[in-house]
Amino acid sequence: MNNKFLAIPGSITAPQGFAAAGVFCDIKRLGTGKGSNKGKKRDLALIVSKVPAVVAGMFTTNQVCAAPVKVCAARVRKGVAQAIVVNSGNANACTGAQGMKDAEAMATVAASKLKVPAGHIFVGSTGRIGVRMPMANVSRGIREAARLLGSEPAHAAQAAEAIMTSDTRAKQLAVEFQLDGKKARIGGICKGAGMIQPGMSASGARPAAVPLHATMLCFLTTDVAIAAPALQQALEEAVAGSFNRITIDGDMSTNDTVLLLANGLAGNVPIATPKGARPKNASAVFQSALNHVCLELAKMIVRDGEGVSRFVTVRVCGAKSFADADAAARAVANSSLVKTSWCGGDPNWGRILDALGYSSAQIQEDKIDVGYSLPGSRKILYSLKRGQPTRAAYRSLCRIAAEKEFDLHINLNVGRSNALLYAADLTEAYVDFNKGDVSDPSSLGG
Amino acid sequence: MNNKFLAIPGSITAPQGFAAAGVFCDIKRLGTGKGSNKGKKRDLALIVSKVPAVVAGMFTTNQVCAAPVKVCAARVRKGVAQAIVVNSGNANACTGAQGMKDAEAMATVAASKLKVPAGHIFVGSTGRIGVRMPMANVSRGIREAARLLGSEPAHAAQAAEAIMTSDTRAKQLAVEFQLDGKKARIGGICKGAGMIQPGMSASGARPAAVPLHATMLCFLTTDVAIAAPALQQALEEAVAGSFNRITIDGDMSTNDTVLLLANGLAGNVPIATPKGARPKNASAVFQSALNHVCLELAKMIVRDGEGVSRFVTVRVCGAKSFADADAAARAVANSSLVKTSWCGGDPNWGRILDALGYSSAQIQEDKIDVGYSLPGSRKILYSLKRGQPTRAAYRSLCRIAAEKEFDLHINLNVGRSNALLYAADLTEAYVDFNKGDVSDPSSLGG
Repeated sequence: MNNKFLAIPGSITAPQGFAAAGVFCDIKRLGTGKGSNKGKKRDLALIVSKVPAVVAGMFTTNQVCAAPVKVCAARVRKGVAQAIVVNSGNANACTGAQGMKDAEAMATVAASKLKVPAGHIFVGSTGRIGVRMPMANVSRGIREAARLLGSEPAHAAQAAEAIMTSDTRAKQLAVEFQLDGKKARIGGICKGAGMIQPGMSASGARPAAVPLHATMLCFLTTDVAIAAPALQQALEEAVAGSFNRITIDGDMSTNDTVLLLANGLAGNVPIATPKGARPKNASAVFQSALNHVCLELAKMIVRDGEGVSRFVTVRVCGAKSFADADAAARAVANSSLVKTSWCGGDPNWGRILDALGYSSAQIQEDKIDVGYSLPGSRKILYSLKRGQPTRAAYRSLCRIAAEKEFDLHINLNVGRSNALLYAADLTEAYVDFNKGDVSDPSSLGG
Repeated sequence: MNNKFLAIPGSITAPQGFAAAGVFCDIKRLGTGKGSNKGKKRDLALIVSKVPAVVAGMFTTNQVCAAPVKVCAARVRKGVAQAIVVNSGNANACTGAQGMKDAEAMATVAASKLKVPAGHIFVGSTGRIGVRMPMANVSRGIREAARLLGSEPAHAAQAAEAIMTSDTRAKQLAVEFQLDGKKARIGGICKGAGMIQPGMSASGARPAAVPLHATMLCFLTTDVAIAAPALQQALEEAVAGSFNRITIDGDMSTNDTVLLLANGLAGNVPIATPKGARPKNASAVFQSALNHVCLELAKMIVRDGEGVSRFVTVRVCGAKSFADADAAARAVANSSLVKTSWCGGDPNWGRILDALGYSSAQIQEDKIDVGYSLPGSRKILYSLKRGQPTRAAYRSLCRIAAEKEFDLHINLNVGRSNALLYAADLTEAYVDFNKGDVSDPSSLGG
C-alpha cells in the first residue's frame, strides 16, 4: 500500500504555495559565531504558506512542557496557521514566564516580517533545557530567514538541517498523489536522535496505552483542501501509527511536536469529514498518504538515533488487549538487557521472556513464541515455541540478529490483539554521547 | 539507629546452630572442569540449621518465575525449613516441567544426605535462563557440600562466593544484639549485579507502587526464637525498605528470592506477634536489626552492580502520595539519560525534570526543587528551586556529582509523601558486559 506513494524532491516545499529557509544565528553557543554561516550548522528554520492554512497539531504529554509547546497547543485550537518558526540549540523548556514571552516574541518578530497576524505563527524549539533563549540572535535569524525564503528543494533542505540537534543527517520526505483528478502533495521534515519515546496527543490527555517518554519535532505541509477538524483527526491517526510507535531510549521529551499545515491550493473538493467525504475515498487516500509520510519519517528518527547500530521492529501479537500488546512491546523495547543483547547481535530470548514477565501484560510463560525475521520476509525463524526452545540452528538465528535491521516476533498466544514498536539497541556510543560535558556549565539543563 | 548494630564475622554461620559450605561442581560450563576446585569459582552453596527453623520468604513478582522460586513459595507457607541449597551458573528458569523436577530433585538429594524431610529443604538458582540443570554435577556438588559443612567464617564465605554470578565480590554481613538479656545474631549473604530492580512479595501479588523489574538472591539466618507469622511480617517490612528500594538496570528477574531461617537457639522468649510482644520491645529490636542487615546487603548489591561507577541515593519528598513519590523516584532512577549523566559526573537537572514530567506522579514544574549532597551530609546544594535554576556555583555541583556516592534530593512541593531509591549510573562497561557472546549457543537464554 505504501508503495503507491513515490517520493518526490523538496519535502516541505513540494506542496504548492509553501516556502522555507534555514539559517545560522548561533543559538547554542551565544557569541562564539560571528554571524557568518560558513561551516556552521543552521539552527533556525522558517516555513511559510503564501495563504492562510488550516493547522493540526500533536504535542508531548510530558507534564514538564516547553513554552513553544504551550504556545502551539493554544493556537492550534483556532485552526489557522501561516508560518512556523523553529530553532535548535535551545529547547526553551523550564524557562518559566520569560520562556513564554520569548516564544511569543519569536512569533511576533516573524509576524512583522511576514506581515501576517502573530496568532497565525507557530513556534518550535529543541536543544538545551533551562537556558534562556538568546533573543537578539533569534530575532536576527528570523529576519534573515524571512529574506531568504524560497520553494526549491534546497530551501527545504536548509530547514531540515536547521532543526537537527544530535541527528547525524537531515530527515525529509514528500509524496504526490491524486485527489479528484487534482495533483496533491504532502511534505515533511523531522528530527530526533535522543530522548525519544513520544507519547503525543492533541489535548494533553495521554493516548491510551502509550507510556510516556525524545525531543522529536516534525513539520508537515500539504496543499490538500481539508477542514480543520478532519485534518486534526487525520493527524491523530497518522501519529498514533508512527511517531507514537517509536522508542530509542524510553525518555519522553518536554518538546515533542508534530504540526501539519494544509493550504488548500491543490484545488480538490475540500475534505470536510474524516471519512467518506465526497468524492468517495478522497479522505482515505489523503489519510493513507499522510500515514505513509509520518511512518517513513518516524523510522528515519529511529535509524538515526543516538548511538543506534540496530533497528528492530518489535511485533507483539496474541495479546488479550491492545494495552497488553503495547505494554509487552514497550517492556521488551525499553529493557536495558534486551537492548544491549541487540547491540551484540545476540538472538537472546531469556531477557525477552523476563521483560514480558514484568510487563503489565497478562502472559503465560508456556504459551509464548519468540521468532526473528528479516524485514519484509515472511519467513520467521522461531527460537522459542510455547515457552520452549526450538531446534532452530543457533547460527541461523545469529545471522538474522547480526543484520542492521530485523523483526522480532512475539506471540503471547492468549488473545487476538497486536501492537508493534520501532525500536533500537543500546550501545556504548549512546552512553558516551550522553555522559555529559562537565566542563560546560551551560549544559546543566540539557 | 543502624550504628547500634556492629558487624561481626561469619555472616550466615554467625548465629548459633548454622553451618554452610560452598563448592565447585561446574554448573555453567558442563564438562570443562575436571571436578577440581582449583582456580574455579564455587557454584553451589548449602546452608543448614542443626534444628528445624521457622522460615519466611519473599519472591519475584515476575510472571515468568523460575522453578526454584515456585518450589520455595509453596514450601514457605508451611513455615518450616532446615536447609537451603543454591547454585549459580544456571537459573533453572523457562525450563518447564523438567525444571520443576530438577528443583525438587536438588532438595531430595540434599535431604537424603542431611537426613531431614525433603519438604524442609529450600532451593535457589541464578544464572542462565532456559538451559536444563546439569543434575549429575549438581547432585555431586550437593553431596560434597554436605560433607564439607562447617560454622567458621570461612564456610560462610565459601557459600557467599558460590552464589555469585557477575558480582565482582562476595556480599555478607552479620550483626549481634541483645534480646531478653540473651545474645542474638542475624547473618546474611546476597548476590546481584544485573537484572536488578526487585519487586518482591510473599504472595505473588505485586507490592504497592513497586514496578517490576535482577536476579538478586539473599539468604538470611538468625538464632532468634520467633513464630513464623511474625518472622514473615518482619521480613516483608525489611525487604520493603531495602531490596525493593534498589534498581541497577530496571529489569526485574525471574529468580529474585529472599529467605530467612530462624532456629530459636538464642533462647529468647519467643517473639509471637510482630509488635509489642513480651518482653516489650524485643520484636522492635529484632526488626531494627533485620532492617539494618537487609539494607546494608541491598546497598552492597547496587555498589557492585554491572559496570556501576556511581551510587546515587534518589530522595523524593513532597509528593501527593507514596505511589507518586515512588513513581517519581523510579522514573528518574531508571531514565537512560539521567543515568548516563551520572556516569559523566554531570549535575544535570533538565533530564531529571523531563523524567519527573513523564512519570505517573502529579507534579508542577514551577514547584520542583532539585539538590545534591554528599552522603550523610545535611548540606544540600540546590541547582533548582521552584523550577528555576539557582545561583549555586556549577563547580560546586560538579564536585558533588563527581563523587562515587552522592544523594539526589527532589522536592515536588505538592504533598507530604516521600520515597527513596538506591540507584546506579549507566556506563559503557554495562553495555559491553551485556552485549552477549554470540559465539556461545548456550547463552541464548541468559
